[in-house]
Amino acid sequence: MAQAIPFITPDGLLSHWQGHRRLTRRVVDAFPEDKLFSFSVGGMRPFGALAMEMVTMAVPMVRGAISGEWNASTSRDARPKSEVLRLWDEDTDQLNELWPQIPPQRFLETLTAFGQYPGVLHDLILYVIDNEIHHRGQGYVYLRALGIEPPAFYDRG
Amino acid sequence: MAQAIPFITPDGLLSHWQGHRRLTRRVVDAFPEDKLFSFSVGGMRPFGALAMEMVTMAVPMVRGAISGEWNASTSRDARPKSEVLRLWDEDTDQLNELWPQIPPQRFLETLTAFGQYPGVLHDLILYVIDNEIHHRGQGYVYLRALGIEPPAFYDRG
Repeated sequence: MAQAIPFITPDGLLSHWQGHRRLTRRVVDAFPEDKLFSFSVGGMRPFGALAMEMVTMAVPMVRGAISGEWNASTSRDARPKSEVLRLWDEDTDQLNELWPQIPPQRFLETLTAFGQYPGVLHDLILYVIDNEIHHRGQGYVYLRALGIEPPAFYDRG
Repeated sequence: MAQAIPFITPDGLLSHWQGHRRLTRRVVDAFPEDKLFSFSVGGMRPFGALAMEMVTMAVPMVRGAISGEWNASTSRDARPKSEVLRLWDEDTDQLNELWPQIPPQRFLETLTAFGQYPGVLHDLILYVIDNEIHHRGQGYVYLRALGIEPPAFYDRG
């Protein structure tokens, strides 16, 4: 059946995502402590709030896909950069642990994430990754506007 | 073999990409004609130049993956918005035509794109999409800085 032809495998997608997460971590770290939750352009949210949004989406999406229990209750409030990075690193480890627990056929199944977002699981997971890339691109502009050179987009190591 | 388990199929990925392309088209269209190739924040490139970069990457990547011939010679120079949108729509059709010509096993093979970027084809294609999302996120900030509400990120229809 056509579904047996992979564009990318689950393992490949996790590697791809973790590469993005390493880059996003560097973008968080590039912000001066006093700008992370205060600076923005055009009235948008500061990058710290966007990073905390990412935290509320990544592990909760994967955990929900495994268990059917949806929880995105982490606060997005301002906190020290070190605390954002600590949460980020914890989630990186948790994603590696949780990912193999997703039954492979589930990626092609339709479910309702967080009780309100229906979709095929691969689209729901790509949405989480795309949202990270989208807001990180926003973070690049904030860094440039602050006179700070952002990390190289192509470097995912 | 593990490779037979898809996270997403080639068809699913093309639909996902075309959803992003519809959104990116709306972002191009949201720029005032006189700002598309002139306005930017923090000394970055204007959104028109970023959109033209996307044009040099999308169809050329897919065509190269099929033929082994790499060509990204489209100029990124300023031009009327209608011309950017016309190229965009042409490429949307071309992607739909070309995509099924990629032999499915090729997505998991390593090749060297444009004679200089080695990688597994699925990573190379995801790079093109991620680059579009990344720069489009930048475009959202430009629009907000211009006082223009960007199109909804979640709307891909």
